[in-house]
Amino acid sequence: MAKSYFSGINNPMAPRNIYLHTLPVPEALERARAALDRAALVATQRTPTHEAAGRVTAAPIYAHLSSPPYHSAAMDGYAVRAEDTFGAREEAPLKLEPGRTCFAVNTGQALPENTNAVIRIEDIITRADGALEIEAAAYPWMHVRRVGDDVIATELLLPQNHLLSPYDIGALLTAGVWEVDTWEPIRLTFVPTGDEVLDFTTRPTPQPGQVVESNSQIFQALAHQWGAVTRRVPPVPDDPERLRAAVQEALESDAHLVVVGAGSSAGSKDFTRQVFESLGQILVHGLAVSPGKPTLLAVAQGKLLVGAPGFPSSAIVCFEEIVAPLVAWLGHRQPPLRPRKDVKLTRKTASKLGTEEILRLAVGTCGEQALATPFSRGAGLLSSLTRAQALARIPANSEGIEQGAELEAELLVPEANLERVLLHVGSHDNTLDLLSNELMGLADPYRLVSTHVGSLGGLTALKDGSAMISGCHLFDPHSQDFNFPFLARYVPDIPLTLVNLAIRHQGLIVAAGNPKDIQGLADLTRADVNFVNRQRGAGTRILLDHHLQQTGIAPRSINGYQREEHTHMAVAINISSGAADCGLGIFSAARALDLDFVPLASERYDLLIPNHLLDDPRIVTLLELLRTTRIREKIAALGGYEVYLTGEIMTPGLGLGR
Amino acid sequence: MAKSYFSGINNPMAPRNIYLHTLPVPEALERARAALDRAALVATQRTPTHEAAGRVTAAPIYAHLSSPPYHSAAMDGYAVRAEDTFGAREEAPLKLEPGRTCFAVNTGQALPENTNAVIRIEDIITRADGALEIEAAAYPWMHVRRVGDDVIATELLLPQNHLLSPYDIGALLTAGVWEVDTWEPIRLTFVPTGDEVLDFTTRPTPQPGQVVESNSQIFQALAHQWGAVTRRVPPVPDDPERLRAAVQEALESDAHLVVVGAGSSAGSKDFTRQVFESLGQILVHGLAVSPGKPTLLAVAQGKLLVGAPGFPSSAIVCFEEIVAPLVAWLGHRQPPLRPRKDVKLTRKTASKLGTEEILRLAVGTCGEQALATPFSRGAGLLSSLTRAQALARIPANSEGIEQGAELEAELLVPEANLERVLLHVGSHDNTLDLLSNELMGLADPYRLVSTHVGSLGGLTALKDGSAMISGCHLFDPHSQDFNFPFLARYVPDIPLTLVNLAIRHQGLIVAAGNPKDIQGLADLTRADVNFVNRQRGAGTRILLDHHLQQTGIAPRSINGYQREEHTHMAVAINISSGAADCGLGIFSAARALDLDFVPLASERYDLLIPNHLLDDPRIVTLLELLRTTRIREKIAALGGYEVYLTGEIMTPGLGLGR
Repeated sequence: MAKSYFSGINNPMAPRNIYLHTLPVPEALERARAALDRAALVATQRTPTHEAAGRVTAAPIYAHLSSPPYHSAAMDGYAVRAEDTFGAREEAPLKLEPGRTCFAVNTGQALPENTNAVIRIEDIITRADGALEIEAAAYPWMHVRRVGDDVIATELLLPQNHLLSPYDIGALLTAGVWEVDTWEPIRLTFVPTGDEVLDFTTRPTPQPGQVVESNSQIFQALAHQWGAVTRRVPPVPDDPERLRAAVQEALESDAHLVVVGAGSSAGSKDFTRQVFESLGQILVHGLAVSPGKPTLLAVAQGKLLVGAPGFPSSAIVCFEEIVAPLVAWLGHRQPPLRPRKDVKLTRKTASKLGTEEILRLAVGTCGEQALATPFSRGAGLLSSLTRAQALARIPANSEGIEQGAELEAELLVPEANLERVLLHVGSHDNTLDLLSNELMGLADPYRLVSTHVGSLGGLTALKDGSAMISGCHLFDPHSQDFNFPFLARYVPDIPLTLVNLAIRHQGLIVAAGNPKDIQGLADLTRADVNFVNRQRGAGTRILLDHHLQQTGIAPRSINGYQREEHTHMAVAINISSGAADCGLGIFSAARALDLDFVPLASERYDLLIPNHLLDDPRIVTLLELLRTTRIREKIAALGGYEVYLTGEIMTPGLGLGR
Repeated sequence: MAKSYFSGINNPMAPRNIYLHTLPVPEALERARAALDRAALVATQRTPTHEAAGRVTAAPIYAHLSSPPYHSAAMDGYAVRAEDTFGAREEAPLKLEPGRTCFAVNTGQALPENTNAVIRIEDIITRADGALEIEAAAYPWMHVRRVGDDVIATELLLPQNHLLSPYDIGALLTAGVWEVDTWEPIRLTFVPTGDEVLDFTTRPTPQPGQVVESNSQIFQALAHQWGAVTRRVPPVPDDPERLRAAVQEALESDAHLVVVGAGSSAGSKDFTRQVFESLGQILVHGLAVSPGKPTLLAVAQGKLLVGAPGFPSSAIVCFEEIVAPLVAWLGHRQPPLRPRKDVKLTRKTASKLGTEEILRLAVGTCGEQALATPFSRGAGLLSSLTRAQALARIPANSEGIEQGAELEAELLVPEANLERVLLHVGSHDNTLDLLSNELMGLADPYRLVSTHVGSLGGLTALKDGSAMISGCHLFDPHSQDFNFPFLARYVPDIPLTLVNLAIRHQGLIVAAGNPKDIQGLADLTRADVNFVNRQRGAGTRILLDHHLQQTGIAPRSINGYQREEHTHMAVAINISSGAADCGLGIFSAARALDLDFVPLASERYDLLIPNHLLDDPRIVTLLELLRTTRIREKIAALGGYEVYLTGEIMTPGLGLGR
């Protein structure tokens, strides 16, 4: 074959791929189905019945045996001929003669010949001389399971295209069906690609510019849930020839569908489209859905080729919205459907017109209401995927959803789990991780789902009703008190209880060994010191500003004062990577990254709890946990904390309590 | 060990097991948990991360690597130092110099040194001379994913006791976590027992008194859904020594839990209790739930022993209500929870006080309402288990549920499937099996769930709103018409449309070769002819009575007139097994069992459809299907049918239409 289709692709200034116009997901699926000949692609497979649970029948299944296969006792007792017992009554008991007019039977046992009823053991009277009597007549077929009561040989047990349940397996074996014709499992091959991706199987240590290839494993784990079987080949570098060879090989294997991981976008090293074009015909390039837009569909050798986006959250949309329904269709299954639930959105969320937007949500029920807070929508954010309980869609024709709006969410966890979710929105602290893990260790575990928006953000969340608890460490220089002075201003209408989580040390996080010898705030104004700040509203920022004011240091004199991070760990990683020389943060963040710490002040980190939730089992459990010695010891062991107030209810004016 | 614990068990008149007082399920579970030392019984297991989906973490997991591991481009474009671009605006465009002040980057690529922003490719203007310009300044970190944006090394990724999702696998690998500590899968051993049970692996042909052992396979398929691993030993006969040896061996294997299938009841051959007593300590004998009562729990060698009932529907309750939650608890998982849905019960259902009753329901949505009809509650009925969409519980303190009552059902199928269920209640006909299979073969398949209550029962169901369609073949001798004459009397308030399914032949089903030479109704009065009848209200019964009246034969002169079966196939099986010599039924039932057939009359079998459902997609699809040539050919091929009216709308007075 001529190589013209690759012309120019190694020229960095070559025109990049241009998306065909993006298609809504249903249309993309329709094109894919229309381009495939399912009957030619997917074969049937004879499967031993006892291994067929989760498989789909390829033909109707008829019973070979009846069930019960004979008239049998439905109770423990004595089999009789009903007609022999007519006339028996309390005043005129009838004597039964074992072995002649009655026969002991256990449940399930075949009726002896010439019997047609069973008298329950408890309805038989044993006289003092051992004689057996009854005081009521039996009727024909009393306590008898007649042959074929359940299943009759030759009748339809299950139709075609039926997903076999464990119960079905029992019914099939009972009916003497030892093998069933099923649709073969759909076989999927995943081809990771990219110069930057590292093969996780080698347990690599990434260098700058390298990332661990993990999309293939998300894909495989999902595909197994769909009943598919999967294969993954080692990552292929950004070389069109090698990528083409890998896809060609996958096409020539027994795979029904081939997914190329990454390279489907419009970057200069995105070769998937050219490769697909050289092997077959492009069906779709670009979905009208976000994340997930850079999805590519093609057909070659009668098989479907999928170019998946590289960012995990985009890739997952491609897997779940495109590949999953097509795999279901190929396998004659119903597409996987998530349970739905109406939720209340706690945060206004904008969306782009013309593109369906998929939001991942933290959801917890609060009384009758399920509260949903969207996670940030960065394309790469795997962490929000691991924390979400649901997703919701903003339709293409909407510019967004208002705060407080009801919308239908698709649940990613069993609905009952939502009652076990404890939603935290507020300041970040490492003790929250500890709490999160401890709550999951309880006999009745709870899942702490935490969104980090700083102390003031937490107050807003409490006001909006989107947080069940909120971590807060706001210092008021005027009263020298913590948190209480801010409540009247920000959440005047919400009665709150403040419970201390810990007293924590704030200080300057500096590189290991403190190479720039930073000893206090005065050093921040040095020309050779790069500072990294926390975002406006963060308690740490307020504490810094207070100390700067007290020492008369102008913020503008600090190199990097404008540079904002949102968590202690993000500040620490700036120091660790050399992007900054110091930042204000907590001890545990410094220690986690083996950095040094110059203590500056102590502050009170409290959990704010709306009073109407104080009886909620999640809150009750949390407060009980905080009052245990064990949790105090574990917090103290983190370093940088004092626990003399932990678990106690705070009152205004308490300050640091000593 | 002394053998005294077995004394008397081979004596048929020995006292049978007496249930300890039956326990509600929650109390039984509590006893089992209290008797087990989970920490000693279940170990942790180091698992490669990419094989850990579906496993449960045994310890908190912290990130090893940050994600992104470096500052990286969030868009395709050019990396710049934002500060270099300040001042650029439409009136004062800024020229960028590739390789000096700007650097081409693809999404995901690491930012070149000394850059801190990315300008999207579409925001770069290429002048005629090839020069690159921008008309707006970049701001620091614009379109950049900063190191640790998603995950920061050392932070908690997942807490202990967390069920790992496919997404989690991606997050773990991205964070450089190659192995995770998980709880080992719970290992279950199933010991089938009973002299009558046949090992399905030998593909046996049962003789009278024998049944195929299938509970072990229901159990294993269910257990795999719970994340457990299973082993099954060959069936053990009703011999206490051999059963004890088998249980002992299972206890000494690595199994965490041993289930003995059957033998836990009170029959004289139920040895499970004695065996458990000899090996350990009985915890529970008898559950206050139906089906499922004869469940036995014991503890031996620190492991749980479960004696499961023998009837499949009882066994399943034992598996799902007792074993599943205990396996979940052992594995630190949430117990499996079914989605709930409010349904309307279409049939009054009685229940025994003091026992929780579990009903299996046929459920289909009809508009906003989900209609639920309980299947019959015979303990052995596997077929209803395969057909049910949901289950419901009648609490122990209730005597039953009224028709029309709302109750909360637990769904066994995805909720969306309920919209695809077509509920038939009425007369049985083999063409319904054919329709059922054809409907599942459609691109958008429907599930026909059929309950057989005869033609008049179907009219009642239509009246109650519990049927979406109803098969009916009621002959009115006075008008010589079918079905219409009965509507005014039984369903006066429900406007119905009648669509013909087929004209079918009714006749006398007789043994192969017609050994008693039965040629017509007159032969039914012969002393040597045993008849089997259909139940009162069945169209076939009415047809018989009409012909008897016409020929002047008194029902009482027919031997077996009082003996009732509910379906054609049940009648046929009576003939096939020799329990009767003949019965009235349809040709296809005779042919299915290789019996002979003496035609007697033709009748019109119609589907009755409430008019308000005529636009329902299920009904529309059904009617379209009935008008295809293909379906007519398939019905005709069954034999005993004529299809000249199939799919057509019937009008009063049409009779057989020719």
